Amino acid sequence: MSSFNPSAPPMPNPSSSSSSYNSSNYNSNPSYGYSPFPPGTDPEIIRSFQMVDRDNSGFIDDSELQNALSSSYHRFRLSTIRLLIFLFKNPTELSMKIRPGEFAALWSCLGQWRAIFERFDRDRSGKIDLEELRDALYSLGYAVPPSVLQLLISRYDNGGGQRVRLDFDSFVECGMVVKGLTEKFKEKDSNYTGSATITYDDFMTMVLPYLVTYN
Amino acid sequence: MSSFNPSAPPMPNPSSSSSSYNSSNYNSNPSYGYSPFPPGTDPEIIRSFQMVDRDNSGFIDDSELQNALSSSYHRFRLSTIRLLIFLFKNPTELSMKIRPGEFAALWSCLGQWRAIFERFDRDRSGKIDLEELRDALYSLGYAVPPSVLQLLISRYDNGGGQRVRLDFDSFVECGMVVKGLTEKFKEKDSNYTGSATITYDDFMTMVLPYLVTYN
Repeated sequence: MSSFNPSAPPMPNPSSSSSSYNSSNYNSNPSYGYSPFPPGTDPEIIRSFQMVDRDNSGFIDDSELQNALSSSYHRFRLSTIRLLIFLFKNPTELSMKIRPGEFAALWSCLGQWRAIFERFDRDRSGKIDLEELRDALYSLGYAVPPSVLQLLISRYDNGGGQRVRLDFDSFVECGMVVKGLTEKFKEKDSNYTGSATITYDDFMTMVLPYLVTYN
Repeated sequence: MSSFNPSAPPMPNPSSSSSSYNSSNYNSNPSYGYSPFPPGTDPEIIRSFQMVDRDNSGFIDDSELQNALSSSYHRFRLSTIRLLIFLFKNPTELSMKIRPGEFAALWSCLGQWRAIFERFDRDRSGKIDLEELRDALYSLGYAVPPSVLQLLISRYDNGGGQRVRLDFDSFVECGMVVKGLTEKFKEKDSNYTGSATITYDDFMTMVLPYLVTYN
């Protein structure tokens, strides 16, 4: 499993999907001269990639990724898909495409978020509310202040006056944003004082990748 | 004109649209018992609001705002619309809706961005490229480092290998993100040293409003 896993939650064990590791399936598809996946990649991940990469280009774009994930999850919003691509693609790659190793890392990361989602969706509603989100993030070591949590969740408020409840892709989006921004902040606050001195250039570079948009 | 104008570019003069100020049209529409617009609001702004607020609820949502702006601009992407609402709505209002005074401020702000867009679209292509964006931001006092500009503009890369060129709503999005984040940073760097000490809570609160999403 790739160690490049930029926004996976910190978990002691690899995701459950990697337990179906089967090295005999590595290189199983003859359409690839050699496997572009890391050794030991779950065959399900390889199949999912190949199913959407119909032209064997070796990379998939946003709508292909959306289709690839739909087989295991509900259909993710394109904004979440683009955040995932931005976080997992090679940073030197300018276009919004991901390659096999990155896809495997992304898939594994989603498996870990899924396990957390299920653990904290205590009433098995298939949705995570504000308190469950707070507890989930806290279990990962992120003590997010109530005002920040409220701001985070307000973006999913449809204005109908109901309590906001997140489905899995909104949960992943929130989790990755909190984890990603917090980890970037921690790099500048190596003594964990809760305060960091940041240059303007660093500030902008830290933040911009999380501003997702569409073409 | 409202002074609440969170992300308008700093310009010496009000936008050209306010030159059509006509106080006799204030309160001209009898469907409102009193005008919820600030005194002196351009009648075109009032008409645009009322045209989309068909139920006279006194506020408009994202798709209504999209329609209201379409009469004067091309159709904005919903992600830009949601960023505009988030920046201009009353911060204590949890739902994504804006009211007349906020709409007037937003409209005026867009007029100012439009003037800048036209000034820096030197080849009159209707698009702004990386250099034109850099010059436009620089003219507003924002010296954005090349790496940050590249990161900013990469989000609009469609992967086709062509040079990225921004239409008006992408330009507004970039401009508001740079202006908004820079102004927030400056609040923490009051001596303009290019470096600021920021707490984790403040960091998250500064950044999250710029992470636009969909319901």
